Amino acid sequence: MSRKITIRPLTAEAFAPYGDVIDCAGAPDKIINAGLCGRFHDRAQVDVGTDGRVGINLFKSQLRELPYALELIERHPDGSQAFFPMCENPFLVIVADADLTPHAFVTQKGQGINFHRGIWHGVLTPLAGSGQFVVIDRIGDTLNLDEHIFSTPYTVDYQH
Amino acid sequence: MSRKITIRPLTAEAFAPYGDVIDCAGAPDKIINAGLCGRFHDRAQVDVGTDGRVGINLFKSQLRELPYALELIERHPDGSQAFFPMCENPFLVIVADADLTPHAFVTQKGQGINFHRGIWHGVLTPLAGSGQFVVIDRIGDTLNLDEHIFSTPYTVDYQH
Repeated sequence: MSRKITIRPLTAEAFAPYGDVIDCAGAPDKIINAGLCGRFHDRAQVDVGTDGRVGINLFKSQLRELPYALELIERHPDGSQAFFPMCENPFLVIVADADLTPHAFVTQKGQGINFHRGIWHGVLTPLAGSGQFVVIDRIGDTLNLDEHIFSTPYTVDYQH
Repeated sequence: MSRKITIRPLTAEAFAPYGDVIDCAGAPDKIINAGLCGRFHDRAQVDVGTDGRVGINLFKSQLRELPYALELIERHPDGSQAFFPMCENPFLVIVADADLTPHAFVTQKGQGINFHRGIWHGVLTPLAGSGQFVVIDRIGDTLNLDEHIFSTPYTVDYQH
């Protein structure tokens, strides 16, 4: 049985079942600062439930190389989680369906993503750049973490 | 009368009266993802009051050049506002005291900032890079904006 996943370009349409793609494609919602700045307004479904609050964190990750061996996915049952790179380099975004079928995407420069609450996803996998990300997620008292380990890892790469 | 402001390096101490400096200095609060990623946890005082919610936006700004003529400052009475560059380049951060005395800082690579609720600040002033920022602020029904125009602009630059 093949356990390979081919990386696809990240698009809002393909990613819609899993979360939001946040970028500056298209026109801004508002022009501010005397015409010098565009505001792309309220572009993520931030959901931390009624007993949490929204927090701002930084993640600093080691870079990963392709092919990537996908063994672990996780989900946060109590809140959404958004990732924005503090560099202009792409990162690998892995999600999985409710039946645990995984999918892999690669971002373009200037794209961030928001995993909707409860969506299975891979851990942070930057491919180049600083490995530093802004992460907006739920701060609360619950564990807010489920993990699944694939007994046979998937191999994630560009066209095999 | 001199109307010049000298840009200082951004430090958490100097910026404390105005907001949070968010970076990966020091040890992470938690190591995650099988030891490959550090989490710098809950590093900003996010405050959107009781009648707003936290939203994620992108700002795409034109770059500014030094010396910068500071004419306009603004404040958001109903919420904090955080800025993180999606590139590794510095940006200029201008704040003002309650008596409207302005101060200017320049970030280092990998730093973001959060203006506390009600703090006077300059508009977004990237000096290099993509000009694209993640902005986390209040989404609500109020205007949430006060502006002040200096009748005589300040000149902002490195050591004059």
